[in-house]
Amino acid sequence: QEIKAPSFGKGILNIVGQDSTWTMKASARLQFLGIGQWGENEDGNLASVGSNFLVRRARLKFSGFAYSPKFKYKVELGLSNRDLSGGSEFTHDAPRYILDAYVMWNFYENFELWIGQTKLPGNIERIVSSANMQMVDRSLLNSRFTIDRDMGMQLRHKFNVSENFIVKEALAISQGEGRNVSKGNLGGYQYTARIDFLPFGNFTGNTEFVGADLKREKKPKLMIGAAYDFNNNAVKTRSNQGDYMYTDTGFYETDIKTLFVNAMFKYNGFSFMGEYAGRNAGDAIAKNNDGTVTGDIVQVGNGLNLMSGYVFKNNWELSGRYTFVDLDKDITGRNKELQYTLGVSKYIVGHKLKVQTDATYLSEVDGPEGLICRLQLEVHF
Amino acid sequence: QEIKAPSFGKGILNIVGQDSTWTMKASARLQFLGIGQWGENEDGNLASVGSNFLVRRARLKFSGFAYSPKFKYKVELGLSNRDLSGGSEFTHDAPRYILDAYVMWNFYENFELWIGQTKLPGNIERIVSSANMQMVDRSLLNSRFTIDRDMGMQLRHKFNVSENFIVKEALAISQGEGRNVSKGNLGGYQYTARIDFLPFGNFTGNTEFVGADLKREKKPKLMIGAAYDFNNNAVKTRSNQGDYMYTDTGFYETDIKTLFVNAMFKYNGFSFMGEYAGRNAGDAIAKNNDGTVTGDIVQVGNGLNLMSGYVFKNNWELSGRYTFVDLDKDITGRNKELQYTLGVSKYIVGHKLKVQTDATYLSEVDGPEGLICRLQLEVHF
Amino acid sequence: QEIKAPSFGKGILNIVGQDSTWTMKASARLQFLGIGQWGENEDGNLASVGSNFLVRRARLKFSGFAYSPKFKYKVELGLSNRDLSGGSEFTHDAPRYILDAYVMWNFYENFELWIGQTKLPGNIERIVSSANMQMVDRSLLNSRFTIDRDMGMQLRHKFNVSENFIVKEALAISQGEGRNVSKGNLGGYQYTARIDFLPFGNFTGNTEFVGADLKREKKPKLMIGAAYDFNNNAVKTRSNQGDYMYTDTGFYETDIKTLFVNAMFKYNGFSFMGEYAGRNAGDAIAKNNDGTVTGDIVQVGNGLNLMSGYVFKNNWELSGRYTFVDLDKDITGRNKELQYTLGVSKYIVGHKLKVQTDATYLSEVDGPEGLICRLQLEVHF
Repeated sequence: QEIKAPSFGKGILNIVGQDSTWTMKASARLQFLGIGQWGENEDGNLASVGSNFLVRRARLKFSGFAYSPKFKYKVELGLSNRDLSGGSEFTHDAPRYILDAYVMWNFYENFELWIGQTKLPGNIERIVSSANMQMVDRSLLNSRFTIDRDMGMQLRHKFNVSENFIVKEALAISQGEGRNVSKGNLGGYQYTARIDFLPFGNFTGNTEFVGADLKREKKPKLMIGAAYDFNNNAVKTRSNQGDYMYTDTGFYETDIKTLFVNAMFKYNGFSFMGEYAGRNAGDAIAKNNDGTVTGDIVQVGNGLNLMSGYVFKNNWELSGRYTFVDLDKDITGRNKELQYTLGVSKYIVGHKLKVQTDATYLSEVDGPEGLICRLQLEVHF
Repeated sequence: QEIKAPSFGKGILNIVGQDSTWTMKASARLQFLGIGQWGENEDGNLASVGSNFLVRRARLKFSGFAYSPKFKYKVELGLSNRDLSGGSEFTHDAPRYILDAYVMWNFYENFELWIGQTKLPGNIERIVSSANMQMVDRSLLNSRFTIDRDMGMQLRHKFNVSENFIVKEALAISQGEGRNVSKGNLGGYQYTARIDFLPFGNFTGNTEFVGADLKREKKPKLMIGAAYDFNNNAVKTRSNQGDYMYTDTGFYETDIKTLFVNAMFKYNGFSFMGEYAGRNAGDAIAKNNDGTVTGDIVQVGNGLNLMSGYVFKNNWELSGRYTFVDLDKDITGRNKELQYTLGVSKYIVGHKLKVQTDATYLSEVDGPEGLICRLQLEVHF
Repeated sequence: QEIKAPSFGKGILNIVGQDSTWTMKASARLQFLGIGQWGENEDGNLASVGSNFLVRRARLKFSGFAYSPKFKYKVELGLSNRDLSGGSEFTHDAPRYILDAYVMWNFYENFELWIGQTKLPGNIERIVSSANMQMVDRSLLNSRFTIDRDMGMQLRHKFNVSENFIVKEALAISQGEGRNVSKGNLGGYQYTARIDFLPFGNFTGNTEFVGADLKREKKPKLMIGAAYDFNNNAVKTRSNQGDYMYTDTGFYETDIKTLFVNAMFKYNGFSFMGEYAGRNAGDAIAKNNDGTVTGDIVQVGNGLNLMSGYVFKNNWELSGRYTFVDLDKDITGRNKELQYTLGVSKYIVGHKLKVQTDATYLSEVDGPEGLICRLQLEVHF
């Protein structure tokens, strides 16, 4: 009594409701990660500072349409401890089980209205799914600047400038304190706009947000985009991420603006992904009502991330990454940070079954250096 | 390699084990909710006091029979932060993931023994599933008086008085501290009895606990019922709900009795649901061993909820609700509260795909007034 | 639109990917438990000290192979509050949702490499799944000595000494602080080795780690094995289990060694399972840097568990268990404990649908006595 299913990597079940009234694709993935970390010891030499073995991600995904093909949905659940973490009084002291839960309503021509919780149209490194990354994990730029997921609405649209030249736009309004916040909106709302230009047409299989050129594009494909995020009266140190800025009477509120400019290029196995991020705030130094500082600081500054790789015909890939994060030292007191990462990936079944390793050298200007080595296995049904 | 499934709203998978040795119906639902709230400001005018956007409910449901059709089961899991919330030392500091998990054993004729965790046979507004409500959410009466779910056993029975006149009875014994309590019973047990009279026979499709007359009953259908709950040596302020009543040496224990009387009527698109609730306690004021008061008070008092609606033939519904809660002011110190709610629903595919909005005006006698507007989307596979 | 599935107890879905590129068996189980407990009161008589009703276990299991039959996986998730419990700062303050998540790579002949989180090759009572137990729950020996699950790698191998004589070996390297630890390794790693001898060949259906002789072995079957666990610089009181041993500057670290010797015998409905456990530590008394004791004590000592049962032809079983735990009193300050358990099981569909009850008399040398009665229902799809 067997159930027939798609081939490996194409989902667990592809369900079609009677009279095609709905569909559901169920899939799942597991990511195993080993980490070794070295830091500078008292003598200035690198010494082991820790290691970790993780079920880094274990996720369930459901997507399809409900009642009408114009009314789609997606749900993604995180089961691993790192995905579940981050609960607080603002999430009803409950784990953050739901990553994505939203509907997409194609109400008119090329327009889609998204309702629910999902990634904001922010930085490209975040939009690339953690299943589709070129290296073991994202860069320091993403850690410092991403606006990740939030709850609210998005308006999506696309159009052709010429036969090949495609423009995609997204507008989002969200609560502005990140995912799974269930205790109400604090401060003002968050507004995000993103525009992407694809001058040479869509990437093969719409892979503009997928790491590595596994499709070996026959013609050069390029996406250039920018996103601007305005978090009105934000109450957290990294827009909708980071720490809540408590004051003696409530929350410190300031407008936080984040800009991302980025590009993805792929051709014949070669890929390049670049991203600039900048953040500023109305007044980055959190203060109590009486003007005394609370100690919280909005993480303002700039960052640059450049990443490139080449996939050999045997599906081994060599990739390199340069990341530079320069938070405003006068305000944040933080030194410039540099990250150099070298990655090797073996894509056994594309991003669905792969082994990836990378080594990252960290260097802090006027600070210590460090080394991180990681090895990861991804199994994606 | 597609899996054929029921039509939209009838479950995701209907699984039948070999030789019909078991069945499972798997279903899921998503509820997106937006809330705007206004309260009285210093000048006595209504001013915005908050807003929230939520994945209000995201649930998985499994039901069927195991080994014999006389041995059924049901499991319902809550994935949203509000469903997962409420963990405490009494739930092993773990989230309250399981809503329902019970088996139903039809051991003799019309008798069923239920074992596990599920809703108690308490107030009708709670028994109506959150998927099948006529308005966005339940009333203040339910917030103050419901006995929701608990762990234990229930005995269910039904019989016909005449050809049409049906009587359904339920008896429950439970731990008495609510769902997911895994650290042992405190105080005594909780005993619940409920009896329902259906003088004109079953509602079409057994919808006596489903909001709105979507079936447009051709003949008037009525259910009148009452439930009585005796929580022996209860340790929480609202029987098995509310706060634990700690003392300096353990828990304050007192018998809490709750009575519900309610009715459901449906005819030709019109529906009426009414409910009275009353609660009293042996001694409602929690005290330490030396007689000093702890500050906890059993929420004794009365409430009334009347709700009605009419479904137009285009499946739009207009509904209204009047709720009155009168906690004993001498004991609880709380003012009378009134709630007036006006609701509009569009049932696109019955309760399976619907958009609902409601506006609630709250008025507290000798207290402030308030306004809540809500908009909800339900997608139920 | 029904899905055909295996017969009851053989899984919910058996999925086979196109071109046999992968498989998945999904199963689930529910365990309902009622407990009554009696202890010695001031007069030295047994008096009720508590009762509890639980959804003890509610689990989902997924297993199969991915891409190649030589590359298998298993995932087991726990949904009940007791399974989810145990979160701490070391699990990212998130519930411990994942029980098992690992891959098994048969890279060469009879060798398998396991990567991820699963049970360590430790004591037999733990290795027997909680679904396949002969009594309602495991013994005191397991509570005190088990090394349960951890994250890391295992190397598994088996070979035949003669036609029937089989030897199975396992080697594991793990983080050493138990399951779902996501904040990095503390102290050193944990090394576990286990060897099992099956002189009369495999048990019918490979049931050497399944309680009760439900297969009614036609010839005597025996497994004798031993496991040795070395937890280098362990930081918890029971090797990778128990409490963290905090000091004023970090963690107390000491080598903890645990030895298990055990046997399983089955013949014609009769079964015997016996286990010895012993634990010692470099220095069992945790100390701060200045030599003052912290109060934490490694639980060193010995234990013995002997268990036997006979399954009648009508699938009722009578079983008995004797457990003796003797922690080193000079170090731990704990008295010897004795446990006598009498169990009755009715296997309706083997371990897949069963009702089990047991009564346990506890006796502490120089301490109080107690009684525990339990009744459990298991439904396993």
